[in-house]
Amino acid sequence: MRRVAVAGIGLTKVGEPWEKSVRELFAEAAVAAMKDAGCQAVDALYVANMSGGHLQHQLQFGAMMAEAIGRPGIPAMRVEAGQASGGVAFDEGVKAVASGLCDSVLVGGVEKMSDMLPECVASSQAMAEDQEYVAFTGVTKTGLSAILHRMYTEGFGARPEDVAMFAVRGHDNAVGCAHAQYPFKLSIERVMASPMEADPLHMMECSAVCDGAAAILLCPAERLRDGVEVAGTAVATDAFSIAQRGDPLTLRAVRRAAERAYAVAKVAPKDVDVLEVMDDTTIDGVLSLEGLGFAKRGEGAAFVAAGGTSKEGEIPTNTFGGLKARGNPLGATGIYQVAEVVLQLRGAAGPNQVKDARIGIAQSMGGVGSTCSVSILRRG
Amino acid sequence: MRRVAVAGIGLTKVGEPWEKSVRELFAEAAVAAMKDAGCQAVDALYVANMSGGHLQHQLQFGAMMAEAIGRPGIPAMRVEAGQASGGVAFDEGVKAVASGLCDSVLVGGVEKMSDMLPECVASSQAMAEDQEYVAFTGVTKTGLSAILHRMYTEGFGARPEDVAMFAVRGHDNAVGCAHAQYPFKLSIERVMASPMEADPLHMMECSAVCDGAAAILLCPAERLRDGVEVAGTAVATDAFSIAQRGDPLTLRAVRRAAERAYAVAKVAPKDVDVLEVMDDTTIDGVLSLEGLGFAKRGEGAAFVAAGGTSKEGEIPTNTFGGLKARGNPLGATGIYQVAEVVLQLRGAAGPNQVKDARIGIAQSMGGVGSTCSVSILRRG
Repeated sequence: MRRVAVAGIGLTKVGEPWEKSVRELFAEAAVAAMKDAGCQAVDALYVANMSGGHLQHQLQFGAMMAEAIGRPGIPAMRVEAGQASGGVAFDEGVKAVASGLCDSVLVGGVEKMSDMLPECVASSQAMAEDQEYVAFTGVTKTGLSAILHRMYTEGFGARPEDVAMFAVRGHDNAVGCAHAQYPFKLSIERVMASPMEADPLHMMECSAVCDGAAAILLCPAERLRDGVEVAGTAVATDAFSIAQRGDPLTLRAVRRAAERAYAVAKVAPKDVDVLEVMDDTTIDGVLSLEGLGFAKRGEGAAFVAAGGTSKEGEIPTNTFGGLKARGNPLGATGIYQVAEVVLQLRGAAGPNQVKDARIGIAQSMGGVGSTCSVSILRRG
Repeated sequence: MRRVAVAGIGLTKVGEPWEKSVRELFAEAAVAAMKDAGCQAVDALYVANMSGGHLQHQLQFGAMMAEAIGRPGIPAMRVEAGQASGGVAFDEGVKAVASGLCDSVLVGGVEKMSDMLPECVASSQAMAEDQEYVAFTGVTKTGLSAILHRMYTEGFGARPEDVAMFAVRGHDNAVGCAHAQYPFKLSIERVMASPMEADPLHMMECSAVCDGAAAILLCPAERLRDGVEVAGTAVATDAFSIAQRGDPLTLRAVRRAAERAYAVAKVAPKDVDVLEVMDDTTIDGVLSLEGLGFAKRGEGAAFVAAGGTSKEGEIPTNTFGGLKARGNPLGATGIYQVAEVVLQLRGAAGPNQVKDARIGIAQSMGGVGSTCSVSILRRG
């Protein structure tokens, strides 16, 4: 296998750009990535998108985006794995370069929700759950996370305020981030006073509706000097519904993907300098931390509350705000995460910079942990 | 790169099995493929599906099907490229084994439409076209093919009856095929007397609504003796909309994918013994034949009418009936095609057997040629 490096990254500001189409958003990120790489060649295109069929009534994003970025003709496809679409597409792109089959692969993600009715967006997100046995009841993704939240606080005696601190820490980090949806601080009081979205999860513990696109150009590592390398990636799944899991508070897909990626990268959690985890809701973030091995079972929330994930803490986490504050454009989110790790490892994170970051991890999740991708990157 | 072989195949009968869910259909095909291979190991799963989001309100087919086939935990994802989803997923699965990253990859496709309202299915198929510039007008996939049909007959002086013969030839071949939707003969008179679906395309020139699932288990070639090997695969795209193409009657995605696959496989059209092409409508089939190099530009319809694609003809094509007669379960169709080529190369095609078939091709297409996959297989 060849070593793979990140040649370029591109991000759009997460927000509500009603004046831009899903195609324009994607092209903006993709062209930025090519420019950043100083490379116009693209051998293959992977487009991560979750809800374009439901929201834009658009399929076949591969061919559409190949044309949109000025490369009609190249092999292209859409990869979908719910909210893990971006991370899974990245894994697939890395393999295409590692195998020697491609020399220059563009992996991009895009999602556009802000100009849709809220109920459309909610039903779209619920499609990543089992329609026959779970989603038909009307439960939302947030509703399922709320079940885990209650199991967590009641089972481990964790404080709801500690879980909610995940959102506060994210907002702390988003300050100064030009591409964040909500680049401002948020107090724990304000989080706990916000309305319930799905009891016991408050609205301010949940990521919001938004639009965004991100792209990464991958190339063989030998082409770059002192670049950021992909040290290891892995994808894993778990029983589709939380009701089918013996222990729903252990995200086995996260564990499995992490174990494999750690083994490939020859890295342990203690070696990691910066981390981007999936916090569609606060409890998703807490359980992800535990699944990745950065906190013990049942202790993740207290770890966050104690400052373990802060920029100066043990493991700086979601250093641009995470899904809550940078924003969560579903299929694109996994690509934002990897791009943000790259910014950290390049020392190009500006006010969000973690000092001397050498090894970083991006973790994304589809459904409530049904699919997970873990990508480990290293400064060359 | 390692050589890749087909260890096992599984197909469900194309039809209207209302009593089976999309999950059950997929599992049936996947379990059949594992049984056929005599192998229970699956390192990774690629699920091809086009319209599950719109029709079943179901996303994240990867994790769902990994569990459905009894392998929760494995890496899994959905690949979507319109009606080319199956072929593109196959290409991706082949690369996973060729690269040495996986030893046993299951590629399956599934689609379930028959229990949906016809207008839902039509709008779902139109989603593979450009929503902003094309599909919003209300034009269907068949409507776009009808435009090409008119350009073809008027531009080349081809006879509509000759184009329609593509459907007749397909039905000829479907006789005796246990998994075909319509295993009976169809006369040219009946085709031409059927109502217009999109003038000048008759209803009997178009594939019908149906359900189906197919699966293929891939492994390294060294594990099989005398098996069927994957000689070369390729995916390519074209300008997304036919209106953006200088010459809409040349399917450039087909040309590009074919050229690459021929080069990798070191095969020319004259070496090919059996062919499965995309005939969502008759004109799609005719243009695909030309794009693949089996007929000259503008001569494909006459070639079909003269018997060139019949079982005893120059290049036996759609030997189990093709999309028209075997059936076209969208995302699954590309997998059916490859599986049928495998049956031919194994000499296991029963009454549909082409004598001494050694090299076969499966070609699938998303939209009206926006994405194309070409897979060349060879008897070991």
